[in-house]
Amino acid sequence: MATQSAPGPQPSPRGLVTLITDFGTGAPYVGIMKGVMLSVAPWLRFIDISHEVAPQNIREGAFILATSWAYFPPGTVHLAVVDPGVGTERRPILLVGPNAFFVGPDNGLFGWVFGPPWEDHPTAGPRPLPEGWQAFVLNQPRFWRPDVSRTFHGRDIFAPVAAHLAAGVRPEELGKPVGEVVALAWPRPEPVGRSALRGEVVYVDRFGNLVTNIPARLVSPAARVEIAGHTIRGLRRTYAEAAGLAALVNSFGLLEIAVPGGSAARTLNAGPGTPVVVNPAEV
Amino acid sequence: MATQSAPGPQPSPRGLVTLITDFGTGAPYVGIMKGVMLSVAPWLRFIDISHEVAPQNIREGAFILATSWAYFPPGTVHLAVVDPGVGTERRPILLVGPNAFFVGPDNGLFGWVFGPPWEDHPTAGPRPLPEGWQAFVLNQPRFWRPDVSRTFHGRDIFAPVAAHLAAGVRPEELGKPVGEVVALAWPRPEPVGRSALRGEVVYVDRFGNLVTNIPARLVSPAARVEIAGHTIRGLRRTYAEAAGLAALVNSFGLLEIAVPGGSAARTLNAGPGTPVVVNPAEV
Amino acid sequence: MATQSAPGPQPSPRGLVTLITDFGTGAPYVGIMKGVMLSVAPWLRFIDISHEVAPQNIREGAFILATSWAYFPPGTVHLAVVDPGVGTERRPILLVGPNAFFVGPDNGLFGWVFGPPWEDHPTAGPRPLPEGWQAFVLNQPRFWRPDVSRTFHGRDIFAPVAAHLAAGVRPEELGKPVGEVVALAWPRPEPVGRSALRGEVVYVDRFGNLVTNIPARLVSPAARVEIAGHTIRGLRRTYAEAAGLAALVNSFGLLEIAVPGGSAARTLNAGPGTPVVVNPAEV
Repeated sequence: MATQSAPGPQPSPRGLVTLITDFGTGAPYVGIMKGVMLSVAPWLRFIDISHEVAPQNIREGAFILATSWAYFPPGTVHLAVVDPGVGTERRPILLVGPNAFFVGPDNGLFGWVFGPPWEDHPTAGPRPLPEGWQAFVLNQPRFWRPDVSRTFHGRDIFAPVAAHLAAGVRPEELGKPVGEVVALAWPRPEPVGRSALRGEVVYVDRFGNLVTNIPARLVSPAARVEIAGHTIRGLRRTYAEAAGLAALVNSFGLLEIAVPGGSAARTLNAGPGTPVVVNPAEV
Repeated sequence: MATQSAPGPQPSPRGLVTLITDFGTGAPYVGIMKGVMLSVAPWLRFIDISHEVAPQNIREGAFILATSWAYFPPGTVHLAVVDPGVGTERRPILLVGPNAFFVGPDNGLFGWVFGPPWEDHPTAGPRPLPEGWQAFVLNQPRFWRPDVSRTFHGRDIFAPVAAHLAAGVRPEELGKPVGEVVALAWPRPEPVGRSALRGEVVYVDRFGNLVTNIPARLVSPAARVEIAGHTIRGLRRTYAEAAGLAALVNSFGLLEIAVPGGSAARTLNAGPGTPVVVNPAEV
Repeated sequence: MATQSAPGPQPSPRGLVTLITDFGTGAPYVGIMKGVMLSVAPWLRFIDISHEVAPQNIREGAFILATSWAYFPPGTVHLAVVDPGVGTERRPILLVGPNAFFVGPDNGLFGWVFGPPWEDHPTAGPRPLPEGWQAFVLNQPRFWRPDVSRTFHGRDIFAPVAAHLAAGVRPEELGKPVGEVVALAWPRPEPVGRSALRGEVVYVDRFGNLVTNIPARLVSPAARVEIAGHTIRGLRRTYAEAAGLAALVNSFGLLEIAVPGGSAARTLNAGPGTPVVVNPAEV
């Protein structure tokens, strides 16, 4: 399949690679990937975004990537490996945007990077590339480790490709252009009744804060929020302002449910998928 | 309020930033802060000291900072964000010592950095700066991210300020001089009876070792230590020398209770705040 | 004891230091070691391989080091500190191979680095150095921190030595040559009956995958694998191909038991030491 987008200018690599995986930090796998990259180009620098994605949870990996990559300088290579299909026919991919490179399995990890998914609501399946983006299926084993395993493409394909890319190899040399990447469906909030909106929790952080899929611009400061049998009246502006269960606008611009000093996740026994209903104003 | 200390020579920044937060390493927050800093100055380098401070536990963050910062080379910027008051009136601060810079919320995180708190026993509240130190309340939004949120000043204020500082911006450009920073009270050991000392556990590490607030110089090698209903007779010199529950001098020069091969915290069901009584010699 | 191996060419240090410890990432200990190293040579760069070795578990540290170090570029310094004998007479050691340096306590951590231990089956005790390797007992306190503690040689001896080494100090200046390092016994698989092999689990990763000590070349694709009362018929080639409990060849070339999407460790209540029997072909 030929590329469907204009080639466009590519960012200049800077030798900077970020990592998102579900490998954990106890096992040697992440260190091994870094060793492989440094063996390609010893001056590379790494930023670990997260290695604690729940095992095989592509959706969580995609959310972490979508919410973090744009804070990095142009030319950063984002290496993401949450890869339950390793060794099967899922495509190894390189995605090139106006400001960044992305390397990993084409299983949905990269489907939410074109803009905040809570604004453009990706659906499940192949997603055509927007203007200014290119994608390449990796098919040049001369840039891989010899003897590619069937169980660790992070080490054998993705890390060496990310390293070559960060060191200046052109994307065109690394693969064959394609016109789409796989996306997971973003759970778009739905209207309920005359004016309410039903969304859901999409992420839980270490504080037990429940990040929802509902953009702040759809929530009035006087909104009534219902979750897990509880009703929260009005938004708080800061964590400190809250006493107990509270709703507020988080740093991504999404509605968040929190229990400052505690954990909303534990208090409500809630997590990804828990429904949240927002009524536009207290009634 | 005008600065109360002589300006003094400032250290030269070296592009090195350490991080202490309670964000955990699973969520994208730490990566986002690093991306923000690299977008200011791509050559910066980061050392993660800890992101596992218990949520909102300023005291633990202050202890980790107090016990680690002085090991870093002069000019290091220490970025610490444990910030339950984010978005409220607690001051964003920059503290400049003869050998280091500190950036974060002025909520007590930085009150124990002037010397080992077990030697100078800070009390709760504003603490005047010692000779050779300066502090600045951050008030120059041109060095911040635009559109500062109310929930993530780590990303919007502290990270960009730390980056500018590490890249060479003068502290005077970043804020308004003030003469004190907030400190938490260090729990000073108290005399008990004729010659004993009552202190407490102040930190528990991954080994379950119980670090106390009692400096080793106050404990004789033959001391009798009481904790959680147990009595320990005499100090051991090494972990290996101990069989079961033992007291020894740890690497900070503090009395520590350990169960080598086990966990004193679990064995004694003890943690921060657990009382410890030291009798000067076995009687 | 004089060195028993020819001096041989030494790798050139590159300012790169990897770290393996059992300190965890919550406490300040790892940051302190890095601060000490940067105070020796501010341009050093660090790769954390793991700080989550189970407390005092030398065997796990040795496995992580053995399976990861060779992926790093020549000249890398590998600093490993799992050190229950700190402060006792166990030797502080520097090991120099054709491609890497190793620094830490000589307690078995470094006994498996000369080749995959599942190929050369080290036995417990002193292990003579192979051709091309050198070892030095660290005995030059001028390269250490002053006032060496009895409880944290990672900070006081190993980190500064690793830093000096990575910065170009010759191994000969740091210690006295010796001809062997301590090894732990690798659990060599044993024949059972006419054609079966009994091995064991040697490592469990975050996915709950059970890594065994049985090299893939000893296992036919049609093998019958028995573990914890379960029988697995034939090897799978990929995780995705498996439905439930499966055996496959992992990325180290070892037999691994996995439950893709689940955890073999939990499913089987298995871990290091759990016996595994391989019958050469399904019968």
